Amino acid sequence: MKAAFIIFDQMTTLDLIGAYDPLTRLKSMNILPEFEWDMCSLTQKVADDRGLRFFPDTAGEPLGEYDLIFVPGGFGTRSLQFDTEFTAWIQTASSAKLKVSVCTGALLLGSAGFLAGKRATTHPIAFNELEPYCQSVVDQRVVDEGDVITGRGVSSSIDLGLFLVERLAGADARRRIAQQMDYPYWNLS
Amino acid sequence: MKAAFIIFDQMTTLDLIGAYDPLTRLKSMNILPEFEWDMCSLTQKVADDRGLRFFPDTAGEPLGEYDLIFVPGGFGTRSLQFDTEFTAWIQTASSAKLKVSVCTGALLLGSAGFLAGKRATTHPIAFNELEPYCQSVVDQRVVDEGDVITGRGVSSSIDLGLFLVERLAGADARRRIAQQMDYPYWNLS
Repeated sequence: MKAAFIIFDQMTTLDLIGAYDPLTRLKSMNILPEFEWDMCSLTQKVADDRGLRFFPDTAGEPLGEYDLIFVPGGFGTRSLQFDTEFTAWIQTASSAKLKVSVCTGALLLGSAGFLAGKRATTHPIAFNELEPYCQSVVDQRVVDEGDVITGRGVSSSIDLGLFLVERLAGADARRRIAQQMDYPYWNLS
Repeated sequence: MKAAFIIFDQMTTLDLIGAYDPLTRLKSMNILPEFEWDMCSLTQKVADDRGLRFFPDTAGEPLGEYDLIFVPGGFGTRSLQFDTEFTAWIQTASSAKLKVSVCTGALLLGSAGFLAGKRATTHPIAFNELEPYCQSVVDQRVVDEGDVITGRGVSSSIDLGLFLVERLAGADARRRIAQQMDYPYWNLS
């Protein structure tokens, strides 16, 4: 199982890290030692919507080798959803068995065509923007369509990350990772 | 108001970003437009406890100009608490009016002497390690000692960040920022 965490300029970092933390504990807590991941971007350098700068692990490489792609949201999605080069890059992940977004990252899955005929969610301020890309917009914290899973706003990333942990490694792994994260709200969403 | 977010090798990124998100919204949502911050490290490059690489804004600079220092936890704290160069660097923040930690970041505030005579908290797995540095270890999600505020484990960073937002900008700012973060648990801790 290899995951691509997609990073881009003007993303919201909590959208990314909320799920990155529980998912990468699958490896660090030795629950799924074979779980691997890369931070993938189209550009050499990335800064979030408040200036925090990251190094990607891969830049401009196609995404065909990944089993899971995770797309965060943020202000950058508003223009990237109409950027044909970026969209073509996301589409190289079409064979990924799990396509996941948080917040306005759903607009990027949508512009790549991955939400066609699916139920999906996003930050409530972007419900209208998401509508053209999917069958219906759902006001739930996590929306599971099997191979496509979307989370609502920013902090829902933690809940979605724990949801994925359970999908990949079972309910006991979710409980153990939530405890290690000291997350008392793990069973509320 | 200028904040220093301390970053170091083998930190846990969610400890950092959980509070970074709500605090930096004070500026991006134009609530406290004068709120500024730097990502500060002792070294030129930083990688977290799972390999994610960051650029600091300042490296090896003293911390005397900051009103607030924020120290995340992570595996790196276990050795850094005994690293005299790192401890001396944290001590350059002694005049900061707010000294804040999440998770095992408390061990770094402790080794700098900032917890002497104070109540404090950390991740439950590190309660024993924290004891020698403070007056008493408290099992609460956020422990407020006026100029020193400590948060328990990893995800408590979000709750601590919203606590600080209220301290700096009032209850309505906390409510608005929690809504923008789509954080339904904002009033539970």
